[in-house]
Amino acid sequence: MASKDCSPQMAKAVLDNLKLKTPKNHFTVGITVYCSYTSLDVDYSFATGEKGCNAMFYGLGSDGTVGANKNTIKIIGENTDNYAQGYFVYDSKKAGAVTTSHVRFGPNLIRKPYLIDHADFVACHNFSFLEKYDMLGKIDEGGTFLLNSPYGADEVWDKIPIEVQQQIIDKKLRFYVIDGVDLGLKLGLGARINMIMQTAFFVISEVIQENEAIDYIKDAIKKTYGKKGDKVVQMNYNAVDTARKNIFEVKYPDKVTSTIHKPPIVPDDAPEFVKKVTAAILVGDGDKLPVSAMPVDGTFPIGTTQYEKRNIAVQIPEWDKEVCIQCGQCSFVCPHAAIRVKAYDPSVLDDAPEMFLSVDAKGPQFKGMKFTVQVAPEDCTGCGMCVWNCPGIKKDADGNKTDHKAINMVSQFDIRKRDAENYAFFLDIPETDTAIYKRNSVKGSQLIRPLFEYSGACAGCGETPYVKLLTQLFGERAVISNATGCSSIYGGNLPTTPYTTRADGRGPAWSNSLFEDNAEFGFGFRLTIDKFNKFAIECLKALADDGRVDRALADRILSQDQTEQEGIEQQRAHVDELKKALEPIMNGDNTVAQLMSLSDYLVKKDVWILGGDGWAYDIGYGGLDHVLACGRNVNVLVLDTEVYSNTGGQMSKSTPRGATAKFAASGKSNAKKDLGMMAMIYGNVYVAQVAMGANPNQTVRAFAEASSYEGSSIIIAYSHCIAHGINMAAGLGEQKMAVTSGHWPLYRFDPRLAEQGKNPLRMDSKEPTTSFADYAYNENRYRILTKSNPERAKELMKLAEQDIRRKQKMYRSLAQIKYEEDE
Amino acid sequence: MASKDCSPQMAKAVLDNLKLKTPKNHFTVGITVYCSYTSLDVDYSFATGEKGCNAMFYGLGSDGTVGANKNTIKIIGENTDNYAQGYFVYDSKKAGAVTTSHVRFGPNLIRKPYLIDHADFVACHNFSFLEKYDMLGKIDEGGTFLLNSPYGADEVWDKIPIEVQQQIIDKKLRFYVIDGVDLGLKLGLGARINMIMQTAFFVISEVIQENEAIDYIKDAIKKTYGKKGDKVVQMNYNAVDTARKNIFEVKYPDKVTSTIHKPPIVPDDAPEFVKKVTAAILVGDGDKLPVSAMPVDGTFPIGTTQYEKRNIAVQIPEWDKEVCIQCGQCSFVCPHAAIRVKAYDPSVLDDAPEMFLSVDAKGPQFKGMKFTVQVAPEDCTGCGMCVWNCPGIKKDADGNKTDHKAINMVSQFDIRKRDAENYAFFLDIPETDTAIYKRNSVKGSQLIRPLFEYSGACAGCGETPYVKLLTQLFGERAVISNATGCSSIYGGNLPTTPYTTRADGRGPAWSNSLFEDNAEFGFGFRLTIDKFNKFAIECLKALADDGRVDRALADRILSQDQTEQEGIEQQRAHVDELKKALEPIMNGDNTVAQLMSLSDYLVKKDVWILGGDGWAYDIGYGGLDHVLACGRNVNVLVLDTEVYSNTGGQMSKSTPRGATAKFAASGKSNAKKDLGMMAMIYGNVYVAQVAMGANPNQTVRAFAEASSYEGSSIIIAYSHCIAHGINMAAGLGEQKMAVTSGHWPLYRFDPRLAEQGKNPLRMDSKEPTTSFADYAYNENRYRILTKSNPERAKELMKLAEQDIRRKQKMYRSLAQIKYEEDE
Repeated sequence: MASKDCSPQMAKAVLDNLKLKTPKNHFTVGITVYCSYTSLDVDYSFATGEKGCNAMFYGLGSDGTVGANKNTIKIIGENTDNYAQGYFVYDSKKAGAVTTSHVRFGPNLIRKPYLIDHADFVACHNFSFLEKYDMLGKIDEGGTFLLNSPYGADEVWDKIPIEVQQQIIDKKLRFYVIDGVDLGLKLGLGARINMIMQTAFFVISEVIQENEAIDYIKDAIKKTYGKKGDKVVQMNYNAVDTARKNIFEVKYPDKVTSTIHKPPIVPDDAPEFVKKVTAAILVGDGDKLPVSAMPVDGTFPIGTTQYEKRNIAVQIPEWDKEVCIQCGQCSFVCPHAAIRVKAYDPSVLDDAPEMFLSVDAKGPQFKGMKFTVQVAPEDCTGCGMCVWNCPGIKKDADGNKTDHKAINMVSQFDIRKRDAENYAFFLDIPETDTAIYKRNSVKGSQLIRPLFEYSGACAGCGETPYVKLLTQLFGERAVISNATGCSSIYGGNLPTTPYTTRADGRGPAWSNSLFEDNAEFGFGFRLTIDKFNKFAIECLKALADDGRVDRALADRILSQDQTEQEGIEQQRAHVDELKKALEPIMNGDNTVAQLMSLSDYLVKKDVWILGGDGWAYDIGYGGLDHVLACGRNVNVLVLDTEVYSNTGGQMSKSTPRGATAKFAASGKSNAKKDLGMMAMIYGNVYVAQVAMGANPNQTVRAFAEASSYEGSSIIIAYSHCIAHGINMAAGLGEQKMAVTSGHWPLYRFDPRLAEQGKNPLRMDSKEPTTSFADYAYNENRYRILTKSNPERAKELMKLAEQDIRRKQKMYRSLAQIKYEEDE
Repeated sequence: MASKDCSPQMAKAVLDNLKLKTPKNHFTVGITVYCSYTSLDVDYSFATGEKGCNAMFYGLGSDGTVGANKNTIKIIGENTDNYAQGYFVYDSKKAGAVTTSHVRFGPNLIRKPYLIDHADFVACHNFSFLEKYDMLGKIDEGGTFLLNSPYGADEVWDKIPIEVQQQIIDKKLRFYVIDGVDLGLKLGLGARINMIMQTAFFVISEVIQENEAIDYIKDAIKKTYGKKGDKVVQMNYNAVDTARKNIFEVKYPDKVTSTIHKPPIVPDDAPEFVKKVTAAILVGDGDKLPVSAMPVDGTFPIGTTQYEKRNIAVQIPEWDKEVCIQCGQCSFVCPHAAIRVKAYDPSVLDDAPEMFLSVDAKGPQFKGMKFTVQVAPEDCTGCGMCVWNCPGIKKDADGNKTDHKAINMVSQFDIRKRDAENYAFFLDIPETDTAIYKRNSVKGSQLIRPLFEYSGACAGCGETPYVKLLTQLFGERAVISNATGCSSIYGGNLPTTPYTTRADGRGPAWSNSLFEDNAEFGFGFRLTIDKFNKFAIECLKALADDGRVDRALADRILSQDQTEQEGIEQQRAHVDELKKALEPIMNGDNTVAQLMSLSDYLVKKDVWILGGDGWAYDIGYGGLDHVLACGRNVNVLVLDTEVYSNTGGQMSKSTPRGATAKFAASGKSNAKKDLGMMAMIYGNVYVAQVAMGANPNQTVRAFAEASSYEGSSIIIAYSHCIAHGINMAAGLGEQKMAVTSGHWPLYRFDPRLAEQGKNPLRMDSKEPTTSFADYAYNENRYRILTKSNPERAKELMKLAEQDIRRKQKMYRSLAQIKYEEDE
């Protein structure tokens, strides 16, 4: 509204007037506007009161809830006289986050372009949601509440928070439970409990006669999963039949009996901003925050995922210290930095919680120290990768291997409290002194605190362990430019940030630009840093020349070797000394002021350019190629899932021949682009191809070499992904097979070797020992084609195997060229 | 001017009124507006009449005129009390086109942001300009005219056109001649006659005392050419000293005596549009054309360079039929399609001009036929590449080789008239029947009429012979997308177009999009053509099914093999037959109408994606890579000059290590990007690297293979360039040395061989036989660094030689891989 004389007061009067005129029967639209005094009150109690059912389902990302609800809408819309409508709300977290399905159906045409405010039915597909979300705030009196619960009808009541009990009693709800998790595990469905919960909905809601509904659900299963094979279809049929028999109504007393309170959204010791703003956004109340609550420059605090405590895992690992070989692999592979290791002085244990576990540290360098593997029970997503990968296996009395490992999955409920306390204590244990061990090793890297933790990535993500490793090795000096894609989403996931700092406040600087310019973006960081460094040196020399800075200090700074971590830390100490020396002479002198502001650029900084294959192979490749060719000291990390993961699985040039993807439903016709070989041809680019599941040592070595190489480097990292259609817990097994089948050769191409007259290309994986088909058909992205088009699958498989033979020959032929003769 | 009621009449009245008010002393700005009746008359006679000198210089692009005039301005501005100003006008033609320098100097501050209308001095640096441009239209009475003339002061008068004589007499000009061309040749400066002409200007104009001026010029020479070495400096010193002694004033009678008339701008038989519009733009009067003269949809007629008759060559080749071995190489290498060959029936000669040359055709397939090599004397740019490359050498009586070849450079003046007549006759000789010879050979390709002729490319251009070859082999079915760069400028050079058609009207379809999307642009052509073809086939089948098209005809079309030219021509005949059959049944039927409009898509079409290295290696590489990876049937031709030629010589990723360029003034630090190898790694892309100067047969073979391969193809063609700082006549020699030094390996990578279990990579050049330095230091782009920074030159040369050794090893190692075992 534009007016000649519109003071806030006047505007309010006008709007108040308008409000008065609103007829009673009209829908009262409210809006909260904090800046212009023009708010209209929102009447949250308003309801249209039409006939029909309003159902809300709270699911866990990737548990299949949304898909099942879409089927529900089809079933009801096509087979009854009801109209149906659905809205689906996701947050920006990857698989494992909350999804809300708003499903309406009823005898009248539904014209409601808004979410449900008044529900008749609410299903909570994850028990831990009760702690966090106001699950029953929108349910009407007499409604039905379905809870996926590990506790049966007779014991669940006292396991739910007091606040929830009160709502159930007040609203006189019908309350049902089903143990979807247990059933899912028993039926082999893992976390995909959608069919169980959908069946329960139909059985309880009685929208359609039960037997009829079951038939429709099964038809839908056939349509949805048919392509994935009979086994999957049958498993889901079983889920439906089993679910019917396992729905129980909870008879509850007419007063609150629980002793559990809903915990605060974030811990009491969280920063003020996190408590006021972050927490509100976390529970879905972000829209209610006033504009004034937002940081004026858009800067959000970092290191805030630690306050989120998502508690989404049903099972988490528990450490058996006697079986543990202390290799650090569990920590190495963890996508969420939710299992950690430390070696420390025994005296630390004096203040330890009673149940805190500890064992004598192995290895001569840790002699006399204690060692602990500690799980973060409320941050762990329960993917199971650490357990799958754990090489510590218990033997029975006869020396035969058992199923018991050094870490084993157990119910989160059982150990959550104990381990939350232990984890808090563990975090306070001083960091292991880096001087006593080798940083650039699998175990060594895990003794360093990760500066990327508890991100919103999928449970079992194959990308994040590489990102975490990067922050362990170089995080305190890393400047990261991040391409758009999964890594930019879980890397900067409003409202929480997984990137954090070590105790001295140093940590990665991170930014995300566009899909198409990320390499250039990072290249700009490098140019700027180098220019600042050069100018700082000029200033330092000038001040040393005229005696204002101590010559010896200047010389120490100018001559400091920064190739190793120790040297970098020494330089930091020198620079601190310099700053102290500059402080008293900051009397308006330009050179002094400039050096003060630029002095941190005297310390080495690593530029890391991160992104997925959609960026590196396709959309950003033109720039990536140019940046690599320029030869400046930047490090590129390609998190290669061989598909556009973030947008839902579209084919990229990295997608292998024969794999299916969106836009390649009949299998990709052409071979995977060999980005590494293309980069190698420049001769002066460090190139490594790694797969941590196949060779973690080679991965660490590649990261260290890339960082130390004073030119451009690229690491292409095999990252298993939910888009591959695999058991994510065994993702590292897929990585191994990708290598042993020859599909993913491991190598490092180091131009420094060529300078010494050696062949720069070293193959780090042997000739293939397994067939490509054995690897590929372990993954649904390939297998699916054998169902939908077996002949084409066969043909593409033959070509793909040929691709591998030729690629292997090419690599091995190039690795055998003799360089020394001609130097 | 916005008015409520502004009819044209009213606007005119308003403007007339304004005009009346213009004070007498004001500059009368005029403007011609054809659409809105609001023109203001331009008073071309108006002059400010300030003191000083207004000098205009008409130079030939790359003759150094502009550079010399810039020096002149500096000399006058810095060493006298005069103010100086210069404007330089170029056309879009490459080297060899007209440049106009407008240079003002005088005792008062010059505030004239416009070109010279009234000159005191005019210099014409190219004699043939007298025929085309109104050289003396802007010179004032009593002015000075300096002419670069092959005729001396005593004979030049009767060699200039009547119209020019009249102007000289009417305006009472002082008239001087100097034979810059002859002096330039004798001094070893070739076409760079700028110092000669600049000296002449200073001597005649007497702005500065002569001896002083000479010193200044020599200082400027030292500054400008110092980096290029002492030899170049000394040559230019000699030019200055020699020029002083060779300026002659022409004493002329007081009436016209010449018998020569200025010829029409374009021939009388040119199309109406060319005569009315093209010609006006050609002589620089484009601004005077009314809007209504422009084609409403912007479409300009094609094949119009033939009417331009630029006559810029001083020397052109003359054929010695007795020495000729009839190899066709002269025609093959000609950048401007200005020397051609035909084999024909002797009866043709019955109507031949008296001086038309002919000889018995060699070779069994041409038995009984006659053969002619014919120069287009008015289109030839006189680069001399054909003569340099001619393998036909006359031997003396003792059997020793002489300097005389089968073609030899002679004065254009001497043979222009004769050969213009001969050429016109030659063009009318029927094309040699393609059935009797092998099209895909050097000689065979030259018996086919080029469909790209007389472009505005530089004399001696290394790119255009490849483009011409493309049009000879595939022009009648080529659809070309052209990246921005030299090839888009000379390919679509307003107002004339070099792309033309053969007698039946078939020729290349051509378009230019952006720098950054050319591969995608061409890819779109392919997708469209394929879709049209598919739809045409569907329509044809439908009409054959319902009997409206003869089944036998449909079958002939559907089964026609189009892999060879013969099959393509047969298909064209079938399609003509089809169109005739459709004509009578075009009674509003949709399928018939659709087939009619799409029937030409039943004939094979070649998509060619053209551009330079700036496009292919840099700005358009992201898209190029993607298009190649897609595997559709497109052919890419990269005209690789190893530098951004069109914009003046900036470094690209193709620029070799050690070569200088803009942005790499101290020599490029990194190795040349190996685009071919990077494309090869896909495995399914046809890749060839060619250099016609090194192996013309391999070039033709690569073009033919690329076209016939039913997938994506890329040919990377070494194109010598004026930016290399070489003697352009010997450009093909540079190509040879690029190959023998190992810098430019010739190879073809044909995926069809891999399908047969053979190694797809064939090396077409031997291991290096000459050193890289021998090749590189033949070119100024490398040599210049040995002067400006000898140490760095040495270091880079060492690395560049290492690059070559490694590249050679890599290629040869890959070419030796055995493929057959595993198939």
